[in-house]
Amino acid sequence: MTGPELSVAFFLQMFVILAVCRLVGTIARKFGQPQVVGEMIAGVLLGPSLFGLMLPEVQQLLFPKESLKILYVGAQLGVGLYMFLVGVEFKTELFRSRIHSAAAVSISGMLAPFVLGAILALWLVKVPGLFSPKAKTYEAVLFLGAAMSITAFPMLARIIYERGLTGTALGTLALAAGAIDDAAAWCVLAIVLASFGAGAAVAVKAIAGGIVYGVILLTIGRKLLARLGTAAECSGKVGPTLLAVVLMLFAVAAWFTDAIGIHAVFGGFILGVAMPRGLFARELQLQLAPFAVVFLLPMFFTFSGLNTRLDMVNNASMSLIALAVLAVACLGKGGACWAAARLNGEDNRTALAVGTLMNARGLMELIIINIGLQKGVIEPGLFSIMVLMAIVTTLMASPIFEWVYGRHARKTGQLGDAPVDA
Amino acid sequence: MTGPELSVAFFLQMFVILAVCRLVGTIARKFGQPQVVGEMIAGVLLGPSLFGLMLPEVQQLLFPKESLKILYVGAQLGVGLYMFLVGVEFKTELFRSRIHSAAAVSISGMLAPFVLGAILALWLVKVPGLFSPKAKTYEAVLFLGAAMSITAFPMLARIIYERGLTGTALGTLALAAGAIDDAAAWCVLAIVLASFGAGAAVAVKAIAGGIVYGVILLTIGRKLLARLGTAAECSGKVGPTLLAVVLMLFAVAAWFTDAIGIHAVFGGFILGVAMPRGLFARELQLQLAPFAVVFLLPMFFTFSGLNTRLDMVNNASMSLIALAVLAVACLGKGGACWAAARLNGEDNRTALAVGTLMNARGLMELIIINIGLQKGVIEPGLFSIMVLMAIVTTLMASPIFEWVYGRHARKTGQLGDAPVDA
Repeated sequence: MTGPELSVAFFLQMFVILAVCRLVGTIARKFGQPQVVGEMIAGVLLGPSLFGLMLPEVQQLLFPKESLKILYVGAQLGVGLYMFLVGVEFKTELFRSRIHSAAAVSISGMLAPFVLGAILALWLVKVPGLFSPKAKTYEAVLFLGAAMSITAFPMLARIIYERGLTGTALGTLALAAGAIDDAAAWCVLAIVLASFGAGAAVAVKAIAGGIVYGVILLTIGRKLLARLGTAAECSGKVGPTLLAVVLMLFAVAAWFTDAIGIHAVFGGFILGVAMPRGLFARELQLQLAPFAVVFLLPMFFTFSGLNTRLDMVNNASMSLIALAVLAVACLGKGGACWAAARLNGEDNRTALAVGTLMNARGLMELIIINIGLQKGVIEPGLFSIMVLMAIVTTLMASPIFEWVYGRHARKTGQLGDAPVDA
Repeated sequence: MTGPELSVAFFLQMFVILAVCRLVGTIARKFGQPQVVGEMIAGVLLGPSLFGLMLPEVQQLLFPKESLKILYVGAQLGVGLYMFLVGVEFKTELFRSRIHSAAAVSISGMLAPFVLGAILALWLVKVPGLFSPKAKTYEAVLFLGAAMSITAFPMLARIIYERGLTGTALGTLALAAGAIDDAAAWCVLAIVLASFGAGAAVAVKAIAGGIVYGVILLTIGRKLLARLGTAAECSGKVGPTLLAVVLMLFAVAAWFTDAIGIHAVFGGFILGVAMPRGLFARELQLQLAPFAVVFLLPMFFTFSGLNTRLDMVNNASMSLIALAVLAVACLGKGGACWAAARLNGEDNRTALAVGTLMNARGLMELIIINIGLQKGVIEPGLFSIMVLMAIVTTLMASPIFEWVYGRHARKTGQLGDAPVDA
């Protein structure tokens, strides 16, 4: 395909992606789900699981193979920018103040699903079509452990924000625990990916590079970046030149973390956390979020959905595996978080709410399993099962949260209205 | 190259494009030139004319051939969105009020360069390496005529806005005349492109499709789109769903005009003109302009610059042709506009200022010759000469304007300060 042909295809894809993601998102919001849950599902619907199954020729025409590379790059830019913006909104002071109380929930919410996931991997690694034949057993164990212990941190943050829970004990607890979990799961993933590269040198490059990147950025980097905040405060705005500097830093961060073998989302998120707050952060959200969240992020869901083949989960043994994965995910994550919160003196309602919120896998699960698929750790079969698990655990979150916590909290005025247009 | 390799290359390109465009843009602004002039030059510097001449291996490494398709699609999205935003800012009421007085300047500023360009084409079509061997003489004549009569309408609008001339006689005259010129030149270009396709059917599809598109959008379309404005006024903002609808409409417009054989910039611009004004338009600018202008548009300048080979203009005959093109461009456009303004009773200062502003070719010239190059009407030699002409006429505009009009007008308080960060 020539450039002009690709651009014609791209504009058509842009329309379809926006239309389907918005439509399914609007339906999802009617059922009290966040917009982003709808977009996750929309991506799967656009892929071989529904659209490709019903109208294979049309789907092929709309998403020709060569155009997928452009979709891939757009998806990486979108998810990288989104995680950057999540980092910009991340409240480090909140995190610090609740670090001890959150640690218990977080560690249980990580260890339990990790151990259960690891045990499950010992079984699944023997089933053909799930893990790549190249994957060693310890790699499969580490990957499934990490993938099970992930939390939909951005989505959790969004639900808490949408419900007006940001300053509450529940909100802070869930946010802090979710952040610790995610950071740890990403570290384990980095080890798996590094070991899955080309031996120790690659692993060391990825892990050491990632640690050096994070430490430098959150210490010296944060101090240097503070000048950007001062510049914005002085001029009262973030002008085009300042925005260009931010985008340049983002590009370097994404390139560096991509090139050393971890992932652009790490680079984006940590850069965002290191960015100054106040007017500067608010302006970045205003100027970058609309395009990134409304258009670029749906490209990620679509690309992910195009790789999802739910039709592979159509026989008894695959369905059994899917159920086992789902049970381990919910028991390990939701159950353990609930138990830890109870043991830490939270009432049953709050503990159940924390467990439910932590259990949602959302976007982060899709990111981690997409990386696993690209790098050849897992195969389309397990990928599709994990997508299913991510969707189900995320879908469960809002109604269960509403049932165990929301309706009571709303009575006592602790909770805002249902999710708004986002 | 695989998706992940392309995305690593993309993030590095993103950094380099942002850095070079901002740097050269900042230097340009120090010399009283608009940012966008700097970005035009930055694109050429990144291409084979400088970077590729000095460090061919590094340039090859940074812009591998396969990654150019992604750059191309990004550039189309950028220039399409930019022209959409120019359309959103276009003041139709201003245009209507000055339509008669502007017509004289506009028609002379179109006919003179068109005729001179056409005569020049009769000579150039015989020189090898300028026009494609497939191009018929009348196509070469039409193309060069259209390319000569183009005005840098968005840049003209920007200079007038930056200088605070929007409400003045000069500002309105230049804006209205520039808009008429551009619309006419685009129509001629559409005819050339259509005739250069595959015969009459393609030409009819392009021209008829383009007219139907424009008429429908500016009549029924405008009325239907007014509802979007009402929705925004009611909710007091443009929420994500409304923004998604706008982007969907943009995608369809870009896809349709691209697919019928005219160009996505037409589709974007006319959709923008048909959009409701007020809060809705202001919100669209706030939410879309930062990313589109700061990052996506520089991709267009870079892609254009990568196709520009100023090293081809290195012998006596090519230099002579370049000089002839430049002379015809300035005499035909600037001279004719000055004469028409004088004949319509404007004082000499104002007439010279109008001539200078109309003479700047800027971004629009790059768009038209990029289309000509893609569609195989012109060859890299003529393309490079036209880039040179576009840069020189645009570079001339600000200092000559300042000399003949600005310093006098500033004394009398009719003019704002020098261009700001944009």
